[in-house]
Amino acid sequence: MKILVLNCGSSSIKYKLYNMDDESVLAQGGVERIGIDNAFISVKLPDGSKKKIMRDLPTHKEGVQLVFECLTDPEIGAIKRLDEIDAVGHRIVQGGDIFNKSCIVTPEVEKGIESLIDLAPVHNKGHLAGIRAVDNLLPDKPQVTVFDNAFHSTMPDYAYLYAVPYELYTKYHVRRYGFHGTSHRYVSHRVAELEGKDIKDLKIITCHIGNGASLAAIKDGKVVDTSMGLTPLAGVMMGSRSGDIDPSAVTYIMEKLHMQPQEMADYLNKQSGVLGISGVSSDMRDVEQAAKDGNKMARLAETMYNYRIKKYIGSYAAVLNGVDVIVFTAGVGENQASMREGATDGLDYLGVKLDKELNKTVHGTETKISAPDSKVDVWVVPTDEEIVIARDTKELVEGLKK
Amino acid sequence: MKILVLNCGSSSIKYKLYNMDDESVLAQGGVERIGIDNAFISVKLPDGSKKKIMRDLPTHKEGVQLVFECLTDPEIGAIKRLDEIDAVGHRIVQGGDIFNKSCIVTPEVEKGIESLIDLAPVHNKGHLAGIRAVDNLLPDKPQVTVFDNAFHSTMPDYAYLYAVPYELYTKYHVRRYGFHGTSHRYVSHRVAELEGKDIKDLKIITCHIGNGASLAAIKDGKVVDTSMGLTPLAGVMMGSRSGDIDPSAVTYIMEKLHMQPQEMADYLNKQSGVLGISGVSSDMRDVEQAAKDGNKMARLAETMYNYRIKKYIGSYAAVLNGVDVIVFTAGVGENQASMREGATDGLDYLGVKLDKELNKTVHGTETKISAPDSKVDVWVVPTDEEIVIARDTKELVEGLKK
Repeated sequence: MKILVLNCGSSSIKYKLYNMDDESVLAQGGVERIGIDNAFISVKLPDGSKKKIMRDLPTHKEGVQLVFECLTDPEIGAIKRLDEIDAVGHRIVQGGDIFNKSCIVTPEVEKGIESLIDLAPVHNKGHLAGIRAVDNLLPDKPQVTVFDNAFHSTMPDYAYLYAVPYELYTKYHVRRYGFHGTSHRYVSHRVAELEGKDIKDLKIITCHIGNGASLAAIKDGKVVDTSMGLTPLAGVMMGSRSGDIDPSAVTYIMEKLHMQPQEMADYLNKQSGVLGISGVSSDMRDVEQAAKDGNKMARLAETMYNYRIKKYIGSYAAVLNGVDVIVFTAGVGENQASMREGATDGLDYLGVKLDKELNKTVHGTETKISAPDSKVDVWVVPTDEEIVIARDTKELVEGLKK
Repeated sequence: MKILVLNCGSSSIKYKLYNMDDESVLAQGGVERIGIDNAFISVKLPDGSKKKIMRDLPTHKEGVQLVFECLTDPEIGAIKRLDEIDAVGHRIVQGGDIFNKSCIVTPEVEKGIESLIDLAPVHNKGHLAGIRAVDNLLPDKPQVTVFDNAFHSTMPDYAYLYAVPYELYTKYHVRRYGFHGTSHRYVSHRVAELEGKDIKDLKIITCHIGNGASLAAIKDGKVVDTSMGLTPLAGVMMGSRSGDIDPSAVTYIMEKLHMQPQEMADYLNKQSGVLGISGVSSDMRDVEQAAKDGNKMARLAETMYNYRIKKYIGSYAAVLNGVDVIVFTAGVGENQASMREGATDGLDYLGVKLDKELNKTVHGTETKISAPDSKVDVWVVPTDEEIVIARDTKELVEGLKK
């Protein structure tokens, strides 16, 4: 069975084609700048090199069309005919409180995703455009949606509700949803496998630390709390996002800078975080380098960044009544040893003991980085959201056939 | 030495007159509704009863005048002549980053407090009005200001800065200040005394849980982090305050409800928290009763309330690399056993073991409520901010005389 996984953003489409018999990747790449000038597709070839093709792409339909062309191209393609694709799986950022698991796309599901545009305007519009483009170009193949927040839907009400008037929840769906759920799901299950244990027997704190970053507290294989909220702005400090701040600081800054709500949200999402403090970059690689070069604001940004992750680890240890495993994943989590060391420094009271020398050598490989006598196992586990989407798609499509 | 402690709000004045030779309270009471109709003073008499006197009080000056009248009243007064008062100490909510300790009032200090009105409009205006009224009526006596956030001024920059553009700090003083500092200071020092230890040898988490509520992490006798922020809205869930929420939820709700920044701040300060969820009251006594009577939303509000305190305890355990002592104080902290049990439930991993039966019997008395074999000592210590203000005032005024 061949499954195409799509991650459609507002002006981009990332794709990966899987042979699900052995979960091998047959093709992958991405389209960028849909609806903007200088649009292109970048196709990753088997030898690791990339081929870039420029093409005018007014809408997602032309974008998906171009992906299909490349997939079936005699020279760089991986399949001969489009109908070799058995199903398409989509990553959907916001499933609200409508979708708590992956599902086959129906007109009703599309309506549901549309009704949530308000909660994730940029993302959900792009997702819908992608689903409809595939509908149009490959009408006979089933599509599946996998929701970023579905894995967090097991949170209890006292964890997901905000202490604001309750009608904001009933009328406007204001609550904590959490994001990166597919990643938290992948790495928590994977680390249980690596530990040789049933996930239900482990208290796990998963740290998805990329440009966006979130932590989750997982007990009995279920998320009980997570750091992102109504939107992906909340929680720890991120590349360009503030994370948690005094809610009154939001209104105070708006008055000082004469900002409207949407401008303020943009400011906190795009100008803040590591970028806002360091003044250097939103990319932790740049900031780490600047700190090494003696930039004090970059060093401060790093310290703040690690400190906030540590505070969440502490908070979730309380939520879980202890912790067995801490997992780091995503761009920064997989690659930046200094963050992993900083965020777990001074957690002796939990029994966390990092193998600091080993930690320094680990970049994106599955490795236990805690010392043999650490009470808590600390792991690096590279995430793989696409394979989860492909697996869910396979399972649901097989169910259809029965 | 006799010292008068004043806590001047926007329309109220609380007072306590101390004989500092033995720290006994000679008189106490409060003026309310200054500048509003039906203003009055309520004087607490030695037998515990209260005497209420109605009086038109257009400004703080008339309010302070009435306090002085009652203090020197032949029948209900505690002193014969006003000049028996040696000094006046004031509680000031917001000292910003200008004042990191108590100080004698000078025109410069008044200017400093005035410059911070922006950060605490309601409070600092009332404080200033009180200082000026005393200036006017008792011009020859020294006054001292004790700042609510001064005890938190030892926080490191990585804890007090928000991950927003750094210029918001340099230009607009946007940072975490923390509040209830005088209370955190009192109970942390007092609990060290009760433990028979040097405060510098203890890792302490102080939980000031009243209608407003905040926690502080204290190491070497110094605050390293606290839950309130730029304003007293941040942190845990409170009587009518939301505490932490996704900053994007603020802008989202503003758009939905068509609110201006100040309206939104009021909404989060006055309509949210326990009141917003339970729909019953902002007073935890009412909410606890409603929960006992079967009100599910009241029960939910209690669960959310305790859960958030527990998460902060966990977070601060990470900040401190463990914890020796947890202290509960203020209205709810001193009196509501169910909160203390709920907030420390499931902290076995820290070695917290409450004596649940003992805990149920403790209301506002200094008591160790943890079991003898608990690794962490849990205490109830009634707070006393006024005595700290009186002591600071005495010390500074004595310094003046040297």
